[in-house]
Amino acid sequence: MPRIPRTARAAAFITILSLPLAAARADEGMWTFDAFPTAKMKADYGFAPDQAWLDRVRASAVRLTGGCSASFVSAIGLILTNHHCVASCLQDLSSDGSDYLKDGYIAHGRNEERLCPGQQAEVVTAIRDVSGAVKAAIGTASGLAAVKARTAAIARTEAAGCPDTATTRCQVVTLYGGGQYKLYTYRKYSDVRIVWAPESRAEQFGGDPDNFNFPRYALDGSFLRAYENGKPVTTPQHLTWAVRAPSDGEATFVVGNPGSTQRSQTGAQLAFAKEVSAPINVAIYSELRGRLIAAMAQSPERFRQGKEELDGVENSLKVYIGRVKAFNDPVFMGRIAAAEADLRAKSAGNAAIGDPWADAATAVAAYRDLYLPTRFIRPQGDLYGYASKLVRASEERAKPNDHRLPGYSDSALPLIEKQVLDDRPITPWVDQLMLEWSLSKAREYLGPDDADAKLMLGKESPEGLAARLVAGTRMGDPAYRKQLWVGGKAAVDASTDPMIVLARRLDLRDRALQALADERYDGPLTAARAKIADARFAAYGDTLYPDATFTLRISYGKVAGWNERGRMVPTRTLMGGIYDRATGAPPFDLPTAFVTNRARIDPRITYDFITTNDIIGGNSGSPVIDRSGAVIGAAFDGNIHSLAGNYGYDGSNNRTVAVSTAALEEALKHIYPAPALLAELHEK
Amino acid sequence: MPRIPRTARAAAFITILSLPLAAARADEGMWTFDAFPTAKMKADYGFAPDQAWLDRVRASAVRLTGGCSASFVSAIGLILTNHHCVASCLQDLSSDGSDYLKDGYIAHGRNEERLCPGQQAEVVTAIRDVSGAVKAAIGTASGLAAVKARTAAIARTEAAGCPDTATTRCQVVTLYGGGQYKLYTYRKYSDVRIVWAPESRAEQFGGDPDNFNFPRYALDGSFLRAYENGKPVTTPQHLTWAVRAPSDGEATFVVGNPGSTQRSQTGAQLAFAKEVSAPINVAIYSELRGRLIAAMAQSPERFRQGKEELDGVENSLKVYIGRVKAFNDPVFMGRIAAAEADLRAKSAGNAAIGDPWADAATAVAAYRDLYLPTRFIRPQGDLYGYASKLVRASEERAKPNDHRLPGYSDSALPLIEKQVLDDRPITPWVDQLMLEWSLSKAREYLGPDDADAKLMLGKESPEGLAARLVAGTRMGDPAYRKQLWVGGKAAVDASTDPMIVLARRLDLRDRALQALADERYDGPLTAARAKIADARFAAYGDTLYPDATFTLRISYGKVAGWNERGRMVPTRTLMGGIYDRATGAPPFDLPTAFVTNRARIDPRITYDFITTNDIIGGNSGSPVIDRSGAVIGAAFDGNIHSLAGNYGYDGSNNRTVAVSTAALEEALKHIYPAPALLAELHEK
Repeated sequence: MPRIPRTARAAAFITILSLPLAAARADEGMWTFDAFPTAKMKADYGFAPDQAWLDRVRASAVRLTGGCSASFVSAIGLILTNHHCVASCLQDLSSDGSDYLKDGYIAHGRNEERLCPGQQAEVVTAIRDVSGAVKAAIGTASGLAAVKARTAAIARTEAAGCPDTATTRCQVVTLYGGGQYKLYTYRKYSDVRIVWAPESRAEQFGGDPDNFNFPRYALDGSFLRAYENGKPVTTPQHLTWAVRAPSDGEATFVVGNPGSTQRSQTGAQLAFAKEVSAPINVAIYSELRGRLIAAMAQSPERFRQGKEELDGVENSLKVYIGRVKAFNDPVFMGRIAAAEADLRAKSAGNAAIGDPWADAATAVAAYRDLYLPTRFIRPQGDLYGYASKLVRASEERAKPNDHRLPGYSDSALPLIEKQVLDDRPITPWVDQLMLEWSLSKAREYLGPDDADAKLMLGKESPEGLAARLVAGTRMGDPAYRKQLWVGGKAAVDASTDPMIVLARRLDLRDRALQALADERYDGPLTAARAKIADARFAAYGDTLYPDATFTLRISYGKVAGWNERGRMVPTRTLMGGIYDRATGAPPFDLPTAFVTNRARIDPRITYDFITTNDIIGGNSGSPVIDRSGAVIGAAFDGNIHSLAGNYGYDGSNNRTVAVSTAALEEALKHIYPAPALLAELHEK
Repeated sequence: MPRIPRTARAAAFITILSLPLAAARADEGMWTFDAFPTAKMKADYGFAPDQAWLDRVRASAVRLTGGCSASFVSAIGLILTNHHCVASCLQDLSSDGSDYLKDGYIAHGRNEERLCPGQQAEVVTAIRDVSGAVKAAIGTASGLAAVKARTAAIARTEAAGCPDTATTRCQVVTLYGGGQYKLYTYRKYSDVRIVWAPESRAEQFGGDPDNFNFPRYALDGSFLRAYENGKPVTTPQHLTWAVRAPSDGEATFVVGNPGSTQRSQTGAQLAFAKEVSAPINVAIYSELRGRLIAAMAQSPERFRQGKEELDGVENSLKVYIGRVKAFNDPVFMGRIAAAEADLRAKSAGNAAIGDPWADAATAVAAYRDLYLPTRFIRPQGDLYGYASKLVRASEERAKPNDHRLPGYSDSALPLIEKQVLDDRPITPWVDQLMLEWSLSKAREYLGPDDADAKLMLGKESPEGLAARLVAGTRMGDPAYRKQLWVGGKAAVDASTDPMIVLARRLDLRDRALQALADERYDGPLTAARAKIADARFAAYGDTLYPDATFTLRISYGKVAGWNERGRMVPTRTLMGGIYDRATGAPPFDLPTAFVTNRARIDPRITYDFITTNDIIGGNSGSPVIDRSGAVIGAAFDGNIHSLAGNYGYDGSNNRTVAVSTAALEEALKHIYPAPALLAELHEK
């Protein structure tokens, strides 16, 4: 889980402005570092970390722009994260002759540490409240005007905060649905290299069947290193590598970047997700899964090429299916409805609040009419993605910074530029499959006679258009992309590349749709939800945490099992257990190195373990930290009950799944030996 | 639509015992021939057919055991049905060298009329009420005992009714959820041959995007002929072939075999479908669709081989997606809930009724625990289907007739034998794909550690097991199937065929699950629903029709458009319209013969048209009959609003889609010329 897969981007398109349901209970909460609930934790656990602890941990926490979390674990830029967070890098570096997903990757010396295309590491250095400035800029504007004023204010604030865009990045984050705006400043490292990764089979033991399940036997850990000017960066602030088994009940912290939650959506928003978007996601991603499975079955090379995309799709799909299940659970939905009813009752008669729930319902009703075109106007695939970014960036860069669309401000452009220009291999058949699938689903849901469907397809079929575009485009060539990036609007406008031609046509419509959505949905909804935030603070005080926004959070909890239909699930698996569970058939076949090194592996070492920490997709790779501030594991999944985590947390059975540092240590010693790395981890 | 595709068999596994919601309104209703609502139709339309009309039409109506409807249209056994009802036959008769789906099929003389494997035509000759005998046999038994008593009584009644199983078939049909049992006697014809079919592209113009939509340009008509002893059968009772455009507003009758509806499910049953089964169906059939699409894309030959399976899957999937949409429509669901509330209010205080809704809820709650194993214990694919039928038949045939499982009584065995023994080509990769998909979904939903999943897979993977079974089985060989059929239980028990070995293992568990379901679900539910039927008759009198059961029904309605978001959809398309709508790209590419014969085709002829008749899957191929009893079209689809037809009918926008006899006539004359057939249709 906790990844934000590439293919799920479209689903995340709706701007997320959220609030938690009510005061957080038990171990619930993805807290910001500037508002750690010290009193609450002390009440729950008898202690809480002090400011020095929090500062040290925050300085060690790394965000990976690919959609994961991580941490520094040595003084020379060594980064611990999940294997599935580097899978895309391993895939990019592989070819038919060398398959680093299959075989793993061990750099023997710095010269073998290889750049991960498109990857960037970021560390928070400051958090500043800029609510006043942003809210003042919005003033009494509404609809599209309010969205534009907010976007402009954010762009100005970010530009002013980070004049040096080569080593810093500024990001204004909207918290509490517009209740707060905070400026996050990051030290960024845009040269990130792969150091160590086990066989994919060691991470994927149990495959999709075991994903989001426990007991689990997955070695989902890897190491990267941040570089600058061709040298490893110095990272005096890093976590201590603790090699010990976690104790049942001990307190644990998970520090990372949960991607997004919608725990404080109004009933109208939830109804929209339940009735409209979730069923579509389940149907279309199921079909994509089937297309990939059958296309990959044609040859081992195709299997290798499609594997990472399929993993991402299956992961997203499981989340969507879990959500649909939650939507169809009257108890779960009743709890959410009751929380909203409680807040509305507490706010009744407060004239300053009014009825923002009705306003939100009106906005959502308007969005229902815009949803299908908005959802399907962006074909999928890396090649189209390049074209789309080049087209939009060329338009936006020609405007003043504070007139641009969100995501194209001066502070955001360097990462887009890196993503567009980095050399990454393209697998044409995967791209063609993604394009064909997304075009065919667009036609299916919009209807063949729909104007937007015709805008995409003209008189061509999805199959014919996808084949023509992939065969004819030069988007796979980084030199050509650079030419268009450097050439700007004139070069992009003059291009006859068929992918660029399509992207130009669709971008116009995309902007028009976005403007409509801003006017009728995003603008009114932000205003409504800012009021709901006020209502919530008035009702529940400051024991609230904001919905997740892929920014740094800290969650506290403990090592604990859960009761599964009358039976307690133990807190951990042991390394020897994998041999009992293996069947010999994929995905329950042993990793090669586990077979050859069996005699050397201590079967009693804790492999994976579970905690009550509250996490979600984006948290993948987050360090699991003990009371002393040392790292004892890397979070890589949630259990099946956590699939509804987008909408709520249930401490009785929602669990984080982590791989232990003890298991990684054993792997570095005996399974995928890396003595220099081991020494580095233990350097004082 | 209106087909019951092979792949949807599993979904139809739950025994359907149903009642309509309340008194039928407007053109709602799938009426039995022995209870035509003469008074109601007279009130609505100012006339109603007399008994002679009904008798003549009934004698002309044909049921095709492949899951379709049809009618005799000449005195020598000529049968009109849909093209998509003969697609499986065309597929079976094709090979790499001759593709009758692609090119169409025209028999030039009787000797070219070729047998459709597995197909059987049946005509109702009598309907007799046997409720007394069946209910007496059940007596006061409950649970499994009640189910067994009912099954035995039905087997005895059928055996007594049709001593000659070579030319007749008897079937006791459960109507009104156990409120009535009726014995249907059929004259059967087990030698059915293909006579005429257009290019598949003519039927499939618009493909899946246009399926369940209108306007429509589909030539979904074909002709078969019933044979006996090597000669065409004599059918003096047949419909007159009327070649004329339908008039707007004229009364129409659709006579055919709607497969199944659940319009009178209790709230608990509906909640189960909404919360549990429908989301699973959407997910797994979407994935199957994707697997087939990608596998077929590998070569034109694979495309040909997989096409019919894919069409069936896409058709079912669209129905499931439509149902999920209906479930998520508060207005639709509110109407159903209100109808149940009304009936419960009307029945309150009636001691003889009690609270059968609570009993039904208890039964459904028990079934929730049995659903997943029941749903997934039967792997898919033709080869496994043969093995499974051979295993079960060998067990059941060894028992006395009235001790057998439903479907294996003496009256049912001849059709099973025909289905198992008829020579049909197998496409191993399609079979392997179906098997792999169904095994992998079984493991996904049951979980890899589940006992039933292990019973299926042992230590193998779905991929490995599917490959081994398909490579090793002899189920594709009709001679070997015959050997096992004739050899009976001893031969089947001794077989080491891997598919038989798996089927033996799973059949045991399947029986055990079925017995549990009979005891806790089917038995109690039947008792509850018989009481609900009593309540409904008491409340609404005899203006009710039973839920569909793939038995002969008649629906009356009229030629009418509907209001689509403020715009009236016209009642028909004209043949010339296809040229305007064609884009040149599949599935909007013109059929070859429409291109070459364009000058000869009269563009003003009515192509497809819509009526308010109430139909559902199974009605495909039903004649659309005018007031005089002449056939003016063949129903082949419903519009998008009719997708919720399983649960309710809405006369304001639910429409039947039919191909006109005028268009078929034009095709027989100028597009796919068949002068002898044309002459036969017009013979007096």
